[in-house]
Amino acid sequence: MKWYKTTLEIKTSGKKLYNFTSQVEEVIRHWGVKEGICHLFIQHTSASLVASESYDPTAKQDLEAFMNHLVLEDQPYYRHTLEGSDDSPSHMRSMLTNTSLSIPVDGGGLGLGTWQGIYLFEHRVRPHRRKVLVRCLSVE
Amino acid sequence: MKWYKTTLEIKTSGKKLYNFTSQVEEVIRHWGVKEGICHLFIQHTSASLVASESYDPTAKQDLEAFMNHLVLEDQPYYRHTLEGSDDSPSHMRSMLTNTSLSIPVDGGGLGLGTWQGIYLFEHRVRPHRRKVLVRCLSVE
Amino acid sequence: MKWYKTTLEIKTSGKKLYNFTSQVEEVIRHWGVKEGICHLFIQHTSASLVASESYDPTAKQDLEAFMNHLVLEDQPYYRHTLEGSDDSPSHMRSMLTNTSLSIPVDGGGLGLGTWQGIYLFEHRVRPHRRKVLVRCLSVE
Repeated sequence: MKWYKTTLEIKTSGKKLYNFTSQVEEVIRHWGVKEGICHLFIQHTSASLVASESYDPTAKQDLEAFMNHLVLEDQPYYRHTLEGSDDSPSHMRSMLTNTSLSIPVDGGGLGLGTWQGIYLFEHRVRPHRRKVLVRCLSVE
Repeated sequence: MKWYKTTLEIKTSGKKLYNFTSQVEEVIRHWGVKEGICHLFIQHTSASLVASESYDPTAKQDLEAFMNHLVLEDQPYYRHTLEGSDDSPSHMRSMLTNTSLSIPVDGGGLGLGTWQGIYLFEHRVRPHRRKVLVRCLSVE
Repeated sequence: MKWYKTTLEIKTSGKKLYNFTSQVEEVIRHWGVKEGICHLFIQHTSASLVASESYDPTAKQDLEAFMNHLVLEDQPYYRHTLEGSDDSPSHMRSMLTNTSLSIPVDGGGLGLGTWQGIYLFEHRVRPHRRKVLVRCLSVE
């Protein structure tokens, strides 16, 4: 068994889902891992990870719009407001999605379903550079 | 250390929670894994994984009803509507629950709490055959 | 590669987020794990795991208040009500957050971001002793 690690940096520009599946696939191919498990961990509390539909762009748009409806800004009971009205909601949206994802590696690539892609969900308005830790256990 | 893998196929018939704990326990017993970690990954974007109360059936019914109240169908801002009114909500419901779960294996079985069971949460109305990848690292 | 395991017991007194990052860091230091992956699994269906902002206490308060607004008690369609009005909502809140978290270990500690902490989210009113399984794969 062998252990591989890297950190992906993903640039964001506003509250959206950013598909970074190909970046993860690329490091797995680069390492030559055929079989094992790939752990993703995002080092942020205002951006998160989601595995979802990556074929039809309207699915992504609906997920983004839904999150805006589910977690409202500027609610009277919010107290964490110094850094802007998108700050506290960004932590709530992160809490409802994922900080870590563990994805099998099969046949040299991610064992995703036909329509699945891996997204970084940015919950802040301003541009950010986000860090996702990638850890891969190769079992051959 | 040893690596075991299989794919479980779970048949669904409508928007419900399907308890498949016994199927996971069965493959772990079959492999003879005593100690390690079991990774579950669902290869779908309209069905998801949940670890929840498995004793009282009314708990399961409340979770199903709650999800219908939290994520509404036919909202005016939905754009991903070609495949039916349960399509876009199915991705939203998946996003709010889990695509991957990592469960310790202890004493030859899943290290679940007394009341915990592992569910597949089907978010589509029509029958489906869902695939859950099971990857197990045995540490003995 | 080596495998380490323990169970953390966390005492709770009401519906709040309990930061237990230091307890996880302590066992990792005690084991002397420098590099690998740490799996956390909570053996409960009415308490859950969250990685979130741990610097400003108002962020934590907003997350707690938000969950109370998102998942209401005493809804007419709830059927799982015998154990109190916080029972069924506790399963819903667990479902929306995490049962398992996988966190890289780097340089002898958790590979968390600057502001990240690991919380147990208690969803019941009464005091509880909660169990979190900690499993750590050291890859050196």
